Amino acid sequence: MNIIKDNIFAKVKNDLEDIEDALENNLKRHFDIVDKISRYIIFSGGKRIRSLVVLLSARICGYKGDDDKVCSIIFEFLHTATLLHDDLVDDASTRRGKPAANLVWGNSEAVLVGDYLLSQSLAIAAKTKKYALITNIAEITEAMSLGELLQLQYKGKIDLSEEIYMDIIWRKTAVLFQGACRAGAIIADASDEKTEALAEYGQNIGLAFQMADDLLDYISSSETLGKKAGADLREGKVTLPVIYAYKTAVPKEKAIIRKIILNKDFSLKDFNILTELLRKNNGITYTEKLANGYVTNAKNAISIFKDSETKKILEDIADFVILRKT
Amino acid sequence: MNIIKDNIFAKVKNDLEDIEDALENNLKRHFDIVDKISRYIIFSGGKRIRSLVVLLSARICGYKGDDDKVCSIIFEFLHTATLLHDDLVDDASTRRGKPAANLVWGNSEAVLVGDYLLSQSLAIAAKTKKYALITNIAEITEAMSLGELLQLQYKGKIDLSEEIYMDIIWRKTAVLFQGACRAGAIIADASDEKTEALAEYGQNIGLAFQMADDLLDYISSSETLGKKAGADLREGKVTLPVIYAYKTAVPKEKAIIRKIILNKDFSLKDFNILTELLRKNNGITYTEKLANGYVTNAKNAISIFKDSETKKILEDIADFVILRKT
Repeated sequence: MNIIKDNIFAKVKNDLEDIEDALENNLKRHFDIVDKISRYIIFSGGKRIRSLVVLLSARICGYKGDDDKVCSIIFEFLHTATLLHDDLVDDASTRRGKPAANLVWGNSEAVLVGDYLLSQSLAIAAKTKKYALITNIAEITEAMSLGELLQLQYKGKIDLSEEIYMDIIWRKTAVLFQGACRAGAIIADASDEKTEALAEYGQNIGLAFQMADDLLDYISSSETLGKKAGADLREGKVTLPVIYAYKTAVPKEKAIIRKIILNKDFSLKDFNILTELLRKNNGITYTEKLANGYVTNAKNAISIFKDSETKKILEDIADFVILRKT
Repeated sequence: MNIIKDNIFAKVKNDLEDIEDALENNLKRHFDIVDKISRYIIFSGGKRIRSLVVLLSARICGYKGDDDKVCSIIFEFLHTATLLHDDLVDDASTRRGKPAANLVWGNSEAVLVGDYLLSQSLAIAAKTKKYALITNIAEITEAMSLGELLQLQYKGKIDLSEEIYMDIIWRKTAVLFQGACRAGAIIADASDEKTEALAEYGQNIGLAFQMADDLLDYISSSETLGKKAGADLREGKVTLPVIYAYKTAVPKEKAIIRKIILNKDFSLKDFNILTELLRKNNGITYTEKLANGYVTNAKNAISIFKDSETKKILEDIADFVILRKT
């Protein structure tokens, strides 16, 4: 994994610096509390994948200007706003190894700074005077809020279907990646064909990304993750590894899985039993297989572009989203 | 007051029906929980002043189309989104005589449905393909979130200056009225002069509206208000009647005011003592005088328009915002 990661990051070093500069420049002139909370999350080790694919999508469509830099931070702002609201919704205690922002500053502050960042995303989009981009942002924010509401509706429901799980992760995660890639193409005034190819790439890496994220809860140690093992389950999030394993398990195992999941204060021992049952019933391998499929779809989607370094980086990013450990 | 109110409502009956229709048509196709929560607030006795001034501002600029109807509900949606987030921020128990939405459905649902309504405001604005309108919405959402954050920062601070109070109410309330009037002018493709005149009208009625609202806490009964007497103080909101009275009070009175305000569980008796001190130290009359001044400013701002029934209604609305009882 590290080879791919280092390989990508070496190639996009300048882009990442441009993104950091744009973020810094857009976080300078606000209220103290807005700056503090925004920075707490924005500069806490995010991988900038969303903003990076904006730049790369614009570049693969031949764009040579500078609008892509400022536009790319829309997606960091939207992402941060969502994290602020989600941590409150999920009642999360930690985020990337640090206490969740709402626990440090309060729910009210987290909600309002989230609202502020949403307004900034819109303001940046409005400045581009590109209707397609503005509509894109409206659609993304709509999908993300509905995705979170859908997730909330199915909180703690162990018999969640794979179909609904896919609908949730599409709305809450994949739409933002899809929108980021589409935004890059829009800035480059790309053809509809290229725009949709990149949107499809983005949607697929988004789905793979979320599945990998959901897997991490069962295959990574809590030290690496920066949050407690089984955090998703404690928040009532039933994800694909569980959905699939529960469906294929024999009645006796089903009962054990159900019992552990319905008890939010499960012990580490319980959690290890559960993880073992997920493995035995192919919950892990099935999710990995599906995530791999979306990575392949993503690469296929951009096959219409001729080979280039930018295309190679986009392909590497597709590989990276399922190989990351945090 | 009732004469003015009846007078206005008789004249805008058709407009109000158009607004209700537009709201109904835009609340039909969503998730069950979105509909329920949105309706709970949107149809709980709001006066539709914000959407009404959109229609009237467009009309006074000669607009005869239908875009103003759909556009006007942006402002009901923005207002509703703010109420949902604010009730959580304020830890409010009731809103318009009913339990606050976050207490009925939960904080998470209130935050996410608020986010959803923000996204819908943006989506409706984007559909008009008018940059000025989209920028207007971005500026409104930015100002409102910063206004709420500023208010939060000064929560419970009795030595809040009048200047900061004005900054807070301008951002959290007046900007939405200002933006609503500006939106009407934008839809009508009005001249800059007319657009800014209407924006100034809106800003002034917004300031007067909020001052009247802040006065209600001290001059209206809790039955009429639909919330507990002294609700603002219990939420830590120090408003102009208190700020002015505290500044002019003698040291002994200052100490009493301070003691009552710092104790959030003050009794009805304490509250009556406080109200009496606000009256004695002209906190009520000073606020009324200022609010009246903004009403006059509002009317003056639209003096550039020739006399018409629409102009008369806008003037009556300016009078109405400080005479309402709820």
